[in-house]
Amino acid sequence: MENRKLSICMIGFGNAGKEFCRMLMEKKEEIKNTYNFNVVVTAISTRSKGALFDPSGVDLNRALQEVETEGRFFQNNPQRIDGSALEIMQKSEADVLIELSTLSIEDGQPAISHIEEAFRNNMHVITANKGPIAWDYKRLKKMADEKGLALLHETTVMDGTPIFNLVEKTLPGCKILGFKGILNTTTNFIMEEMEAGSDYEAALKEAQRRGFAEADPSMDIDGWDAAAKTAALINVLMDGNATPMTIDRTGISGVTLKDIDDAKRKGGKIKLLCEGFRDEDDIKGRVYPSFVDNKDIFSNIDSTTSVLSISTDLMGEICIVERYPEIQQTAYGVYSDLLTLIKDYLK
Amino acid sequence: MENRKLSICMIGFGNAGKEFCRMLMEKKEEIKNTYNFNVVVTAISTRSKGALFDPSGVDLNRALQEVETEGRFFQNNPQRIDGSALEIMQKSEADVLIELSTLSIEDGQPAISHIEEAFRNNMHVITANKGPIAWDYKRLKKMADEKGLALLHETTVMDGTPIFNLVEKTLPGCKILGFKGILNTTTNFIMEEMEAGSDYEAALKEAQRRGFAEADPSMDIDGWDAAAKTAALINVLMDGNATPMTIDRTGISGVTLKDIDDAKRKGGKIKLLCEGFRDEDDIKGRVYPSFVDNKDIFSNIDSTTSVLSISTDLMGEICIVERYPEIQQTAYGVYSDLLTLIKDYLK
Repeated sequence: MENRKLSICMIGFGNAGKEFCRMLMEKKEEIKNTYNFNVVVTAISTRSKGALFDPSGVDLNRALQEVETEGRFFQNNPQRIDGSALEIMQKSEADVLIELSTLSIEDGQPAISHIEEAFRNNMHVITANKGPIAWDYKRLKKMADEKGLALLHETTVMDGTPIFNLVEKTLPGCKILGFKGILNTTTNFIMEEMEAGSDYEAALKEAQRRGFAEADPSMDIDGWDAAAKTAALINVLMDGNATPMTIDRTGISGVTLKDIDDAKRKGGKIKLLCEGFRDEDDIKGRVYPSFVDNKDIFSNIDSTTSVLSISTDLMGEICIVERYPEIQQTAYGVYSDLLTLIKDYLK
Repeated sequence: MENRKLSICMIGFGNAGKEFCRMLMEKKEEIKNTYNFNVVVTAISTRSKGALFDPSGVDLNRALQEVETEGRFFQNNPQRIDGSALEIMQKSEADVLIELSTLSIEDGQPAISHIEEAFRNNMHVITANKGPIAWDYKRLKKMADEKGLALLHETTVMDGTPIFNLVEKTLPGCKILGFKGILNTTTNFIMEEMEAGSDYEAALKEAQRRGFAEADPSMDIDGWDAAAKTAALINVLMDGNATPMTIDRTGISGVTLKDIDDAKRKGGKIKLLCEGFRDEDDIKGRVYPSFVDNKDIFSNIDSTTSVLSISTDLMGEICIVERYPEIQQTAYGVYSDLLTLIKDYLK
């Protein structure tokens, strides 16, 4: 049986994008053998590293090596091309856009425009960028559905841990009543360092040194990242209409060492929780630091681990935990969406 | 659009079967509206309550009421019928067998014979009985595949919590390297009561009083139930060839109050763990009481809660937790398999 070609246009080539390309190269033959698809990256557009284009396939090994060496694609790379992300997308004529640009918390742009353009060009979309899902999910999903295109976004909350797919594919007939989670690594790490006696500034510096805090600490500390994830979960799992702005949001900057000591004395900890819940006819979200008893599963969600507990009408409460993820788990989210695309949309 | 009829033959009408029938009655219209299927139970065979048969549909309200009143179907119920389970299955000409008979740990019978007979009669199978999956999964699955029939068994481990579907439907391309879980409620409850100061006998009595310990306590205490679940997970998730007998099994009867106190002093607890792991080319399973640190997620798996942690090649380690299930969550497992059957095999 001959392999069908599946071409990808990538926007963004940061850590997740690079790791995804490594995974794709490793799994290329497996995808051919299992699904009869020859997956090829035909275009990569970035904000600061330049862009590459080749209808027969970008040389990913070379691209990775150049970026590792110089932080950008070489000027003499024969696949180099100039142009905006939208121009390169159009030119690529790819089957699928993989949107990995940097999150803009204010409005979800330019990722939303990229996705709209993809649908206009009849491209499926896989996004690891939570902005579009937090800001504009319903409208984008409607655009996709009208054209029979995919809008896949498993990676936007808890990396590749199945959250959206868990509900969509394994809890048929269940209604989601609400959820509660610990979804921001940086704040979880800082709270834990403070429990161990660090002060806030030192804990934040350590998180930045380890590479999981955002350059702008406000995104984590003030609960914006958590609010975006909460909005995305409300929009997809509960059919709500949230944005990061509608989430009742309190960050951790007001949490003192004394608060943490008080919690310890009462047999617990303070954790930054994300919640979605039904309030009469409304669906609401909030992000706030809360006391968690040491006997609660949530109290042992340490370091970079995260958790989401989902409350359902028929299946009671189930919890899913991602333990100590690395960048590979983000790449896997994108890769699993690619396989979902093949299995659910292209077979 | 006209509804297609989907007829069910049930074997077993205990708590899970009764609750499933209640759920089915409640969801009957929803299934019609969503999937265009009219689901009808046409036969129920039990070991001690009698049997019912009606090609146009058993009166489930009446059946439930009779069993609640007298512990069996009334003699004057016009849908009453005599015959063995196999005879009633044949007579039912149903589209699907729902196998809910009592687990026999020695050999998985008679459930295995029921399932074989179902396949011979071109019936799909949903089983909540872990015996066939622990004892004979590969052969039965092959029989099903050869005829394009379903063999669905989500309920056999952790009730309706998606375990098998989690791996099959939401972790595409992942290889399962191993797993670790707390999967037996009775022993988990007993260990916890002993931590709180009860002695073993009192704790066992309390578990029996609450209704989740087996009448024969050896099934739980000696780790047989846990071993059967471990074997089922190895067979399905890891493509292994286990039976309950091949699992290296140590129950909790050797655990003393002193062991539990020692664990407490070391900052932990004793829990009965289930493990599946790769050992060179072999896949092995074991069930054993083990020290669990208070900082580990597993330490807060209390009372009837259960957990399964899955280790994968691409997605690292993810954990799923079922919190405080009731009989409804067992019924949901069967119901979710019914919807999976409709979506994956009948659409």
